[in-house]
Amino acid sequence: MRTVSLYADWDPKPGFVLGKKDIDQRLTYLGSRVWRHPKVKIVNKEVREPGPTEVLLEVKACGICGSDVHMYQKDKDGYIFYPGLTAFPCTLGHEFCGSVLVAGDKAINKRTGRKLEVGEGVCSEEMMWCSYCRPCADGFPNHCESLQEIGFSIDGAYAKHIVVDARYLWSIEDFRKLYGDEKMWLLGSLVEPTSVAYTAVITRGGGIQPGENVVILGAGPVGAAACAILKRAGANAVILSEPSASRRKMALSIGATHVIDPKTDNVADAVLDITHGHGAKLILEATGLPSVVWPDVERIIWEGRAINATVVVVARADDRIPLNGEVLQVRRANVVGSQGHSGQGVFPNVISCISSGMDVSPMITKKISLDEVEPSLVKLQTDRDDVKITVTKFD
Amino acid sequence: MRTVSLYADWDPKPGFVLGKKDIDQRLTYLGSRVWRHPKVKIVNKEVREPGPTEVLLEVKACGICGSDVHMYQKDKDGYIFYPGLTAFPCTLGHEFCGSVLVAGDKAINKRTGRKLEVGEGVCSEEMMWCSYCRPCADGFPNHCESLQEIGFSIDGAYAKHIVVDARYLWSIEDFRKLYGDEKMWLLGSLVEPTSVAYTAVITRGGGIQPGENVVILGAGPVGAAACAILKRAGANAVILSEPSASRRKMALSIGATHVIDPKTDNVADAVLDITHGHGAKLILEATGLPSVVWPDVERIIWEGRAINATVVVVARADDRIPLNGEVLQVRRANVVGSQGHSGQGVFPNVISCISSGMDVSPMITKKISLDEVEPSLVKLQTDRDDVKITVTKFD
Repeated sequence: MRTVSLYADWDPKPGFVLGKKDIDQRLTYLGSRVWRHPKVKIVNKEVREPGPTEVLLEVKACGICGSDVHMYQKDKDGYIFYPGLTAFPCTLGHEFCGSVLVAGDKAINKRTGRKLEVGEGVCSEEMMWCSYCRPCADGFPNHCESLQEIGFSIDGAYAKHIVVDARYLWSIEDFRKLYGDEKMWLLGSLVEPTSVAYTAVITRGGGIQPGENVVILGAGPVGAAACAILKRAGANAVILSEPSASRRKMALSIGATHVIDPKTDNVADAVLDITHGHGAKLILEATGLPSVVWPDVERIIWEGRAINATVVVVARADDRIPLNGEVLQVRRANVVGSQGHSGQGVFPNVISCISSGMDVSPMITKKISLDEVEPSLVKLQTDRDDVKITVTKFD
Repeated sequence: MRTVSLYADWDPKPGFVLGKKDIDQRLTYLGSRVWRHPKVKIVNKEVREPGPTEVLLEVKACGICGSDVHMYQKDKDGYIFYPGLTAFPCTLGHEFCGSVLVAGDKAINKRTGRKLEVGEGVCSEEMMWCSYCRPCADGFPNHCESLQEIGFSIDGAYAKHIVVDARYLWSIEDFRKLYGDEKMWLLGSLVEPTSVAYTAVITRGGGIQPGENVVILGAGPVGAAACAILKRAGANAVILSEPSASRRKMALSIGATHVIDPKTDNVADAVLDITHGHGAKLILEATGLPSVVWPDVERIIWEGRAINATVVVVARADDRIPLNGEVLQVRRANVVGSQGHSGQGVFPNVISCISSGMDVSPMITKKISLDEVEPSLVKLQTDRDDVKITVTKFD
């Protein structure tokens, strides 16, 4: 089968030391310090037989993530941008869903408690948590100490078929009735990024009580999905700051109630104006520029009358936030970091929300074939008008 | 009666603008920008009659707080250090307890649900929350929008008598049996600072599960009380970092299990060593030097294997913390600010802990008379060997 795979040279930067879980020439937890000269190619690979707990899927849709873009984007010395766990060569693609073709005898469907049925629609976590380490045993699979990641260190889903352990699969059959036999797959591919947003604002951020105000900084897929989730949670004002007009328009269609263009308006002033000086219960940093947005974040907390604000940092950034502890003390506020999408009911809750009407599909602004992945990865390095580009043709 | 009162000149720094709740020449929320040339004097004042919901107390003990020290300490231009709510002249003293002499008809004893009895031992909150604003109505009196503070903006307890509304009083009669008729007053005067620590590590920090490790940075009264509270909560290692040898020794006697001298040992290395690389669930910043201790805080979180750490910032500091969001994300950690001691069961829980054996009295390193307050305020500006100096003679 044809796959979109990434190749790069193992060429560690000066000073790089092999970590205790890194594998020389093959796997590292610090991608941007090791991998150089990335190339994306269409490569033919054989699909393997599923084991007893595994499933062979026919992939139906697979979205392009910012991580995919950053694995192919390189700095002036040719090193990849993406800083995390990577093992190349690797088939990319981790925001996917598909239909069950073959299921091992012990591949259990969480929906039924029995073996996965042929034809069942499923989506997949991308974090292959081990189930053996302490964080996994404690119920925090997002922080697994022996993590592998589909599409980063294990072959992903820019391919017609993929084999996945049933542990990471969740049925999306409930989408079929409301959305039909085609659109269900688009939504299935959005469960993973929507779960990243859900983990950030609900699991880690503690959610909101209906009627509270929220502020979302940045309308990438995670920020946009957060608008939908917090609207669903009963927010009063869902205020989004985003420089791209097309992204603002899309976010308004899935949950944002107010949008701000930070290029023309001061975000803190606008939030205080919209909320009549009240401020917000929850603020999501989804821009990747935390030290840039922080002065506005602190002004919203300090000048707004609402105490108890939670700031959730979900976008990754090699940056230092100039945090004023007094703001957290006087305004009874806190700052939380969020990572991942697994565990604690997140996937099934996102699936339930979508099944019962939370249609996040306007996020998908373009559908493409495998051959268009490479040029899309290039385009997304500079273009913010598309939100989610999704592969739907795999031949 | 004789009182220890602070006088200062209303002489705003250039650029100071009267806030909407400030009162010209009299009250400000920004003490250090207004008050100059502080003087502490013994002054005779009349004690007033208690109203229907008020109580006249005979003060039995009143501790000196760091805030008292900072109201008298001045910068090179003569402005006071203390940055918060102040109205001078004012009798100082807010960590106090006493015996009921006269109670108004509607002065209810929370212990009995009936009018306060003459002779009842009580301690007092210092934060006079209004009970009318939104934070009060929402159950967050520490963030009252119309706050007054005993010993800061309302006459305090460096005096033989004080009148306090029953709303702020809590019975300490349960101390009498275990500690006797003298020591109960020392402990009564420690309920307020211990409640500041309890609010920080339990109410705001979320406490711990028995068996988890904690790190306390700084053994002032709040850090020392936190050691006692977290030991009581079932902590495994209660690791204290504190440069003063006498404070380290005191903290070991009330709950710390391990102490570190940050002048001679690296705190992160020591914590990782003591915990066999595990790290800590809760870290309390009680030094007032957050940007100094932060590199160690982040190393404990980043290098320790324990995820889910909460950092509580309780010491006030005009400082910027160089926060790395990645540390919070990858290690599932968060940062919380804490202020105050009122509400949410804190005073009664602290009283129950002390009544049932949590003896924090070793914190009191010296007992003095009213006449010794002024020289003690001077001494405490530079001397870290005493922890809590407490007035017990009021004639």
